[in-house]
Formats: sequence, C-alpha cells, structure tokens
Amino acid sequence: MINLRSKKIGKPGWENQNILSDETLKDIYGKQALQYFSQDNPYPFVFSNSKSFDLIELEQLLQAVGWGRRPLRRVKRALDNSLLKVGLWQHDSKFPRLIGFARCTGDGVLDATIWDVAINPVYQGSGLGKQLMSYLMMSLKKIGIKRVTLFADSDVISFYKRQGWILEPRGNKCAFWYSN
Amino acid sequence: MINLRSKKIGKPGWENQNILSDETLKDIYGKQALQYFSQDNPYPFVFSNSKSFDLIELEQLLQAVGWGRRPLRRVKRALDNSLLKVGLWQHDSKFPRLIGFARCTGDGVLDATIWDVAINPVYQGSGLGKQLMSYLMMSLKKIGIKRVTLFADSDVISFYKRQGWILEPRGNKCAFWYSN
Repeated sequence: MINLRSKKIGKPGWENQNILSDETLKDIYGKQALQYFSQDNPYPFVFSNSKSFDLIELEQLLQAVGWGRRPLRRVKRALDNSLLKVGLWQHDSKFPRLIGFARCTGDGVLDATIWDVAINPVYQGSGLGKQLMSYLMMSLKKIGIKRVTLFADSDVISFYKRQGWILEPRGNKCAFWYSN
Repeated sequence: MINLRSKKIGKPGWENQNILSDETLKDIYGKQALQYFSQDNPYPFVFSNSKSFDLIELEQLLQAVGWGRRPLRRVKRALDNSLLKVGLWQHDSKFPRLIGFARCTGDGVLDATIWDVAINPVYQGSGLGKQLMSYLMMSLKKIGIKRVTLFADSDVISFYKRQGWILEPRGNKCAFWYSN
C-alpha cells in the first residue's frame, strides 16, 4: 500500500505547500489521517477514517454525483452501522470541505463490501478517486479483512480493473433485489 | 412472501406428519421459526433466524458444499458481526441436524449482502434452497432493508434468476479483492 504522505511530501517543486503538522492533522482529522497534495493546490487534501460527517454536506456530495435523495435519519443509522467510513476533505483551517466519501459494511473479519464511493465532480480526474480507494483499502487491511467486494457501475469498471480488482471471478455475477 | 407453514401443513395426504406445536417450535427454534414438510419426510424441516449454531456443525456443513476451511475463532467473530443468520434444521427431538445456512452483513437500513448460502448436498434438489431464501428475504423485509445484494456463483445464477433477482442491473459488475 502506498504511503500517501511520504510519497507526495518533500518532492522537488512542492516547497510552497501548506503542510499540516502531525499534531494539527491528528487534532482535526483523527489519528490515521493522511494529507495529500496536488501541484495546483497549495492546501492539502486530507483522508480520514475517523472524522465525523455533517450529514447534510454528505448528502449534498452524494447528490452531486447523481444519487437519489435518502432520508437523513436512515442515512445516519446506516452510517452508524457501517464498518468503516472514509472522508476526503479539501483542507481549510476554518471550513474543511468534504469532497470525497466511501463506506464499507461487513462482518469485520471475513468480508467487507464497499458502498457509496464518491468524488465531487469538480475534483474528479486528478487521481483523488484512486487515492481514496488506496486509503480505504489500507484501512481495511489494518482491520485484517480477508476479502473485499464491491458492485462496480458500468462506467467505473475500468477504474477498478486498473487498481487490481478482479471482475466476476469464476463467472460470479452480482444480483440485486429491491424493496418496493 | 410465502407463509411456509400455512402453505404446507394441512394439505391432504400429510396427516402422518409430526407437526410441532407453536410452543415447542418457539422453545427450540425461536420466535420467528417456521416448520416445513416434504412428502417423504415425517419430521419437519425448521427455518430459524435466532437459534444459535454449533460452530463445528456449521463448518462441516459449509465444507460439505465445498468451501475452504476457516479458523473457528474468526468464523465466530464474523457471525457475531453479521446482521442476520438463518439456519435450516432437520428436526429431531434430541439432535436437530443443521442442513442449511445463510447469513447477511449490512448496515441494517439501506443495504444487506447475503453470504454463505448452503444446503447439505444430501438434501439438495427438493426445493429447500428456495425456501431458505424465501425465509431469509422475509426476515430482511421485517428489518426494513431497501436493497439486498449477493454474489452468485456461475452455477447458481439461474437459481437466483428464477426467484426474481436482477442480475447485473445497468451493467453493474461485481469486483473482488483478496488479501494474501
């Protein structure tokens, strides 16, 4: 797994970046937070698996990527019961902005399933989705999960393939049932 | 959803069945248990979503259907963290035998994923798998889940299709990642 921080920080030409101290990072975003820089942005993007979410901001993000509206009360319960939630923030000392999200359900031992992977469309195309998945998988590995699964929409199949996901192993197909 | 009990009990020609009283059923198999008869078997099959499992018996069942061995300690934790476990027993007043199993993980609100659906090979081909799924879906509906998903092995795709599952909606594909 890539160490996002050490990979990006300290590269030549990145001297003007506003790197957060370990202490500040931990205070704002939690113990396992990682900061990540892109060249055209002086402020870090931060991945966190412990910073809590503003539900309205989260729903706005999910709707920006085209998903249906869901009752906030139900979303809150679903998040509470999820194994892992990962957020991606555009850091700002006053108002960090949530620009990416993913969550997992599972038994915490044998299986985990990834849901709701989203990057705000404004920030898409600069590799943040790949980094988000990388951070999520690192967090899952720390838990010790043996198998991770997801349902890939048709337009992101190549995205997951490029990251080493195995599509339909041994002819497996995903099956869905919807309540009315 | 089919009411398994009322559908099968009381049919002409089934007079010699050893029907369990509601009280006995509840005592041995829990509140939402359902008994089910097949014509060549005088003792009921019983579906339960609350009777606890003997881990060794469960592993024997899962290995009988060809699955890999897993450390019991991890299996126990995975079961504890599962949203729902369903067992199918061949009733016997002294030694009920576990002959079917399925479990779900999920957030208990928006999504549930079904894993480890198994019927002992000796009992396959008599519709018990279909009844097991029916009982499982009834239990999930009671929780109020909006969407249920599963990964269908290539040899059971038609089994799920016949039961109304939608395969690969909008070109969705399942993706797997395995730890080494």
